[in-house]
Amino acid sequence: MDAISRRKVRKTQGGVWSELEDDLVTEAPLEIRLGGTPLAVLMRTPGDDEDLIRGFVLTEGIVLSPSEVGSVAPVPQAPDDNRWELRPADGVEIDPAQFQRNMYTTSSCGVCGKASIDAVRVAALKPPSGPQVAIELLLALPQRLRDVQRAFETTGGLHGAALFDDQGKLLAVREDVGRHNAVDKVIGALSQQAWPLGELILMVSGRISFEIAQKAAVAGVPIVCGVSAASSLAAELGEELGLTVVGFLRDDGFNVYTDAGRVGTV
Amino acid sequence: MDAISRRKVRKTQGGVWSELEDDLVTEAPLEIRLGGTPLAVLMRTPGDDEDLIRGFVLTEGIVLSPSEVGSVAPVPQAPDDNRWELRPADGVEIDPAQFQRNMYTTSSCGVCGKASIDAVRVAALKPPSGPQVAIELLLALPQRLRDVQRAFETTGGLHGAALFDDQGKLLAVREDVGRHNAVDKVIGALSQQAWPLGELILMVSGRISFEIAQKAAVAGVPIVCGVSAASSLAAELGEELGLTVVGFLRDDGFNVYTDAGRVGTV
Repeated sequence: MDAISRRKVRKTQGGVWSELEDDLVTEAPLEIRLGGTPLAVLMRTPGDDEDLIRGFVLTEGIVLSPSEVGSVAPVPQAPDDNRWELRPADGVEIDPAQFQRNMYTTSSCGVCGKASIDAVRVAALKPPSGPQVAIELLLALPQRLRDVQRAFETTGGLHGAALFDDQGKLLAVREDVGRHNAVDKVIGALSQQAWPLGELILMVSGRISFEIAQKAAVAGVPIVCGVSAASSLAAELGEELGLTVVGFLRDDGFNVYTDAGRVGTV
Repeated sequence: MDAISRRKVRKTQGGVWSELEDDLVTEAPLEIRLGGTPLAVLMRTPGDDEDLIRGFVLTEGIVLSPSEVGSVAPVPQAPDDNRWELRPADGVEIDPAQFQRNMYTTSSCGVCGKASIDAVRVAALKPPSGPQVAIELLLALPQRLRDVQRAFETTGGLHGAALFDDQGKLLAVREDVGRHNAVDKVIGALSQQAWPLGELILMVSGRISFEIAQKAAVAGVPIVCGVSAASSLAAELGEELGLTVVGFLRDDGFNVYTDAGRVGTV
């Protein structure tokens, strides 16, 4: 299945109707199985499915490191490419209940932002103290993300996520109809090379919700940047865990919600 | 808790640093309990929590009609306002397993878009054949939504959802950091007056994913409009179920992905 679906669309503009073939972002379910049992269904844009699954099981705390994953492969003879089997590494047992687990569920102190942050704190990898990045380096990232976002231009419907190194070099970029999926894909893609991911910068094409900041925290990525706003809880999570959270990164400026000493003042 | 959180932010623009108090959209967990047992946690923007819960249990198929809900109220003496108790109406039993249920889980034919659509078809209310709407009526909606979206302007971080009647009159508008929550809130708000909701128009401030179209279908709302793109599966769901799906509704035009005979050609 393709990331883009062509579809006949009726368009009106300035009072004139036309009919055209338009590109829509593809959305389709992906099922993750463990020992043949379906445990999760993600609505995602097809493509980079192995990265998505590897990232998802890491950032949702289903496995604690990439080495716990033996293999991720499509179910043979399945009628479509939407069914995948996750096999643990030799000697590793994955508890199916982990798929039902909700990181934010109840704690004795009540359900609040603090309880959510504490739950992530347990799963998060301690972020590295660096890198130190200059303003100019961050300002260059949105254009670099746009340059390589393939499908957005045609569909307008895809979120992009990219990981850059501390020099602003693009290491990986992935797209999805779901912003959290794009982040899982890009984290999953790099997880097989190093874990925690290290002194990297995560850049997303939209907003930074708690979920996005959480995924960066669990992967040990210290800097999270977005083209749009950050939520209150994303900023609080950043502050508590020592992440750098940067929003409205566009044109010639940005907002630093939590700095943690990483954004240059010059 | 407020929908907006003030926070100290360092801002850089054109090479100049400044420090200011900025408005961030509030994101906080809400726990839904049934008979005292926590069954779901939603990350949402505080406000209209009762509407959110009423809409969520309807559009997720946990209850089949508003009359199955007895009451929705904050848990007394909870340390914060994030814990809510759902009580079924007299004689109604709600199966806690419904909260774990995933509409898109496996079917014998495989996991595919068709299976997802079939699952919604079972839960969806047959949409009314009307209303017939003129181009001008639809073109006026985005501005009406923006006029009443309170928090977006200050935070840039909130999704809006509104329900309009067939004359374009605004019936309800709600906001949330999560677009699906905004839709649940607005559906929940009107669900106590009529069910199915009838010949209404759902307008969202962003994209139309499968999840958004699904919620409209389950509520029996026949027209779904978005400022941005629709996904392939949202369009397919609309076609299969006879919904009208309109995307890129902005300025002087829009795209009709599925018409179902409701959008005027004049």
